[in-house]
Amino acid sequence: MKDNQIPKATAKRLPLYYRYLRILNNAGKKKVSSTELSEAVQVDSATIRRDFSYFGELGKRGYGYDVQDLMQFFAKTLNDDQMTNVALVGVGNLGSALLKYKFHQSNSIRVSAAFDVNDDIVGRIVDGIPVYPMSDMKEQIEIQQIDIAILTVPAQKSQDVVNTLVDAGIKGILNFTPARITAPEGVLIQNVDLTNELQTLIYFLHSNEPSFDETTED
Amino acid sequence: MKDNQIPKATAKRLPLYYRYLRILNNAGKKKVSSTELSEAVQVDSATIRRDFSYFGELGKRGYGYDVQDLMQFFAKTLNDDQMTNVALVGVGNLGSALLKYKFHQSNSIRVSAAFDVNDDIVGRIVDGIPVYPMSDMKEQIEIQQIDIAILTVPAQKSQDVVNTLVDAGIKGILNFTPARITAPEGVLIQNVDLTNELQTLIYFLHSNEPSFDETTED
Repeated sequence: MKDNQIPKATAKRLPLYYRYLRILNNAGKKKVSSTELSEAVQVDSATIRRDFSYFGELGKRGYGYDVQDLMQFFAKTLNDDQMTNVALVGVGNLGSALLKYKFHQSNSIRVSAAFDVNDDIVGRIVDGIPVYPMSDMKEQIEIQQIDIAILTVPAQKSQDVVNTLVDAGIKGILNFTPARITAPEGVLIQNVDLTNELQTLIYFLHSNEPSFDETTED
Repeated sequence: MKDNQIPKATAKRLPLYYRYLRILNNAGKKKVSSTELSEAVQVDSATIRRDFSYFGELGKRGYGYDVQDLMQFFAKTLNDDQMTNVALVGVGNLGSALLKYKFHQSNSIRVSAAFDVNDDIVGRIVDGIPVYPMSDMKEQIEIQQIDIAILTVPAQKSQDVVNTLVDAGIKGILNFTPARITAPEGVLIQNVDLTNELQTLIYFLHSNEPSFDETTED
């Protein structure tokens, strides 16, 4: 597998493919054509073929794909065949909503620990998830073997919290704060900025782009 | 302005540039070098120069950029010089959190109407925002001149709601549901899939990508 050469746009589409294959597999379907796949995930066939080509031979031309094989391949590729514990830091409005959020496509991603500074919730179990004080972060992240943290703290606290997370051994951060945080090499930061998303949508709306979809971008 | 030729990756960085310029302007700064800008927004200088080049001459080489001019330019480009009313459909966990969410970079984006089916909240004002029944959607979207909707309904309801929104005149949808929704040509759909974001992060973590940042993607 040529992992290191896969473009980010391709990587972002893998969960889409995987989700649809799971739906097909649950429905008892054995084969799927690239046309069906294309229609369901709304990515054009040429892009799908190019995406799949990074992983070698995944199917035979004109024959379609074996649903179960392909599903298992993506499960492995996305590490969905093993449990991933995730931490969430900052149980405010957005953090609380994310604790309740169903990670719908995945049986294997689980928020197993939350952290906050608020004495009203620290030490309690919120939506099934224990909320620890910040001082327990390093210990819990080690015990629970957590690599990934969701960051939903106030922007002005974000860099301090990131430093603590990195110190505790976190390797990937899903950053919901508007702050542009920095981390040492080897720690991945993925920004989800909701205002940016809205502003970009407004921009495209006013600039009359002919078509626009997140997942067909390259 | 060559709006129609701007790559999506560039468009997604414009809100970042704009936000930083507003911070500088508020701090009374008059000039900013491309190096300073690059460090603050964590986008390399070459990418910034290429992004800016789509908009013609925005500054003089070696002289830096005029903060206020550039800020005003981006305000106009992003339509942040006029109020944009936005609707939110589905006041569940995530929807409620988004009603409380501060659209931090923008004074001009405002959720002005929410819609839900739940009788407990319909007709009430939640976090300052009126929650209307679905049956009032068309009327309110017209009265309030709303072009954009945030979709936070259950996945299985999403396509029906999208059809209603399109019928009511909505031109852009920020889709937080995992469903792959479709809309007629001329209606833009931007997907924000939180499970995808996590899975992509997990994927990159395990594939040892050397570096990874949302905003430097092309």
